[in-house]
Amino acid sequence: MKQFSVAILGFGTVGTGVYRVLTENAADITHREQIAIEVKRILVKGFDCEPNIGLAPRELFCTSIDEIVASDVDIVVECMGGVNPARSFILKCLEAGKTIVTSNKEVISKHWYEFEAAAKKTGAGLYYEATVGGGIPILRTITDSMQANNITRVMGIINGTTNYILTKMSEEGREFGDVLKEAQLLGYAEANPTADIEGFDATYKLSILSSMAFHAHMPIDVIHREGITGLTKDDFKAAKQLGYEIKLLAIGKKEGNRIEVRVHPTMVPNTHPLASVRGVFNAIFLTGHAVDDVMLYGRGAGCLPTASAVVSDVIYACHHDGEHRYMTFKNEAEMTPDIELNKNFSSIYCLRISVLDRPGTLAEVAKTLAKHNVSLKDVLQLGDDAADNNSKSITFMTHEAHEFDVQAALEDLRALPCVFAIESVIRAEN
Amino acid sequence: MKQFSVAILGFGTVGTGVYRVLTENAADITHREQIAIEVKRILVKGFDCEPNIGLAPRELFCTSIDEIVASDVDIVVECMGGVNPARSFILKCLEAGKTIVTSNKEVISKHWYEFEAAAKKTGAGLYYEATVGGGIPILRTITDSMQANNITRVMGIINGTTNYILTKMSEEGREFGDVLKEAQLLGYAEANPTADIEGFDATYKLSILSSMAFHAHMPIDVIHREGITGLTKDDFKAAKQLGYEIKLLAIGKKEGNRIEVRVHPTMVPNTHPLASVRGVFNAIFLTGHAVDDVMLYGRGAGCLPTASAVVSDVIYACHHDGEHRYMTFKNEAEMTPDIELNKNFSSIYCLRISVLDRPGTLAEVAKTLAKHNVSLKDVLQLGDDAADNNSKSITFMTHEAHEFDVQAALEDLRALPCVFAIESVIRAEN
Repeated sequence: MKQFSVAILGFGTVGTGVYRVLTENAADITHREQIAIEVKRILVKGFDCEPNIGLAPRELFCTSIDEIVASDVDIVVECMGGVNPARSFILKCLEAGKTIVTSNKEVISKHWYEFEAAAKKTGAGLYYEATVGGGIPILRTITDSMQANNITRVMGIINGTTNYILTKMSEEGREFGDVLKEAQLLGYAEANPTADIEGFDATYKLSILSSMAFHAHMPIDVIHREGITGLTKDDFKAAKQLGYEIKLLAIGKKEGNRIEVRVHPTMVPNTHPLASVRGVFNAIFLTGHAVDDVMLYGRGAGCLPTASAVVSDVIYACHHDGEHRYMTFKNEAEMTPDIELNKNFSSIYCLRISVLDRPGTLAEVAKTLAKHNVSLKDVLQLGDDAADNNSKSITFMTHEAHEFDVQAALEDLRALPCVFAIESVIRAEN
Repeated sequence: MKQFSVAILGFGTVGTGVYRVLTENAADITHREQIAIEVKRILVKGFDCEPNIGLAPRELFCTSIDEIVASDVDIVVECMGGVNPARSFILKCLEAGKTIVTSNKEVISKHWYEFEAAAKKTGAGLYYEATVGGGIPILRTITDSMQANNITRVMGIINGTTNYILTKMSEEGREFGDVLKEAQLLGYAEANPTADIEGFDATYKLSILSSMAFHAHMPIDVIHREGITGLTKDDFKAAKQLGYEIKLLAIGKKEGNRIEVRVHPTMVPNTHPLASVRGVFNAIFLTGHAVDDVMLYGRGAGCLPTASAVVSDVIYACHHDGEHRYMTFKNEAEMTPDIELNKNFSSIYCLRISVLDRPGTLAEVAKTLAKHNVSLKDVLQLGDDAADNNSKSITFMTHEAHEFDVQAALEDLRALPCVFAIESVIRAEN
């Protein structure tokens, strides 16, 4: 039977989960997979500041990456998070021919091209299933189950913190700030929540997901990003009346060599499978030319779900020890040259506008929209509870329109005397 | 670059789909996967009776399996369906060292242990992703993504025909026979619909799914099977009032060495992700001890979705040509000996009973249920539109109860003078 030894870098939530699964399930894994995997080293910053040090035998711990690089471990599992020192540790290991398995979406989204080049040089493996969708096996589905397809769309909920907040706002009619505080108290949001609520975390994941799905590098800086901090309970009220839920979606679409990649609050119809994804759960649609729509749903984070994906990578790496399979096949730092970024994507838009309450206003707004090729599907007036009787709030649902047209229309609308404010602009998917 | 040649057995819906994907996408597959796959032979019964013969060059077709066995093709894709002659053709190919990829759930569920033994003898590969869930990559998720988990539950909608019928019955308030006829006209149900509506197709798939998930052979004859022919529009009416949908679910649960496997109409709450799986779509939940719930959703049948899964297997087989990975690991014809079949499973039950409309009836029924440890959660009276004023229909929703207890209680209920009939018994999952 083949024997493999593993080092774990970082012993927080994910690291301890990986250690638990690899040790508690060792017999089952050996029995089913016919390989023996042993954890030989755990890297921590220091022995005194490490709260989980009691969870593994003391002799496994070390504080020097060089000790691990010099050791005979085959596979290094990186669960430290962040770019520094994760990036240099990963490079050191790959250059020493050690296979890397990581759950660190930030470092992969920013440096995978370096890592993959280093890995190919020494023949080491490089796996990162856990970086997108936590326990959901989304990347392996792309590489090992959808190979016959040209994937034309990826779309999903890939950040649990924001989905928890949006679910609460929708179901309890509460405001963003209020729910965020509660989420922080419960540990669903971090003390500094920026990475989640401003959509950075989702762009890291969408960069990885769309690069793999479309076989082209889509760096994070080409992704259109909007967070959820601007959403109000009025947005949810309007969405409900129109039969929609609001979700923070990551969307990638490919048509020929044109790709659009965007993360923003999105309205989805109540009947859409993504509408019923509640709380911290994640779900991702893949659309392939042969298979059509496939959706995967599960826990996008957490100790054991993430460990499930990491250990799956470790086992997969063991089975492919002779010839590792790289999850991408190009190594550009920039966007793949033969790809064109489609910034003028088309979408349905839900516009909530506060206007002067007098005859003719609606016609004027509609005319302005029409001038920019934005045609209306639904118009909804919430107005009767408006504080100021002079103004009313109107919600417009458009047919499919182009982003640049909508932005130009909004600029014109802002200049109209009868328009007090553009209260919100939320895109929708059907 | 490695070269592989393929033969396709059968050129109906799936066979033509596989041919199309392998030829139309040949350049993409070669580019991404660094392997070249060529279709070299297509087996048909005869040239004259083959309606799709115009879809491929005439020189590819042949009518003799022996010609294929004697040829140099590496991989044989079986898409004929049924047991005869599929079984003997598959065995011949495996014995000749040719890798088999099949979409034929009936022959795999009945003979996989023979096939796997033959495959292991010659080192040929044996892959059958397309047998369960059509285009949904459910089997590869078990083998290549959930290896770190002890899977404790599989549960899902794995027959599109019945889900189409149940969706129509639920949404349009129509009776079974009526919807079945329409489904036959539209091609969603076969002229002889028994395999689908009586749940046989779902048991084939559950046998494969549960055997792989639980790493134990669960033959089709140990699966508790009930079809959907007994469901009426009154069942849907009662389910709706209780906040449930009715779906034909395939369920497998494992606790220690006890396994239950069953296919039957099942009520699921409206808020459950399976409740919103409509029409011919399939969806399957897997529950692992580490990853918790994962759900996969997609098209359970059809030419290109099924071809997507088949071609994925072909590509996977090419990559694992040096050492094939078998999808199961035991070769028993019977149920795995160290496993105990749990026939006395526990479930929630929805009982619709027609009773004599007089004081005391409800108490008598409840007492009889209680005697058998069946306690009630909800009682619902639909009765006011009853034709006969002497009788009324009562719907009981139980707490979790044991199958044997419920069956014993039903026997006692039937003997009560105040009970006219047990109108329906439908299990529920939360």
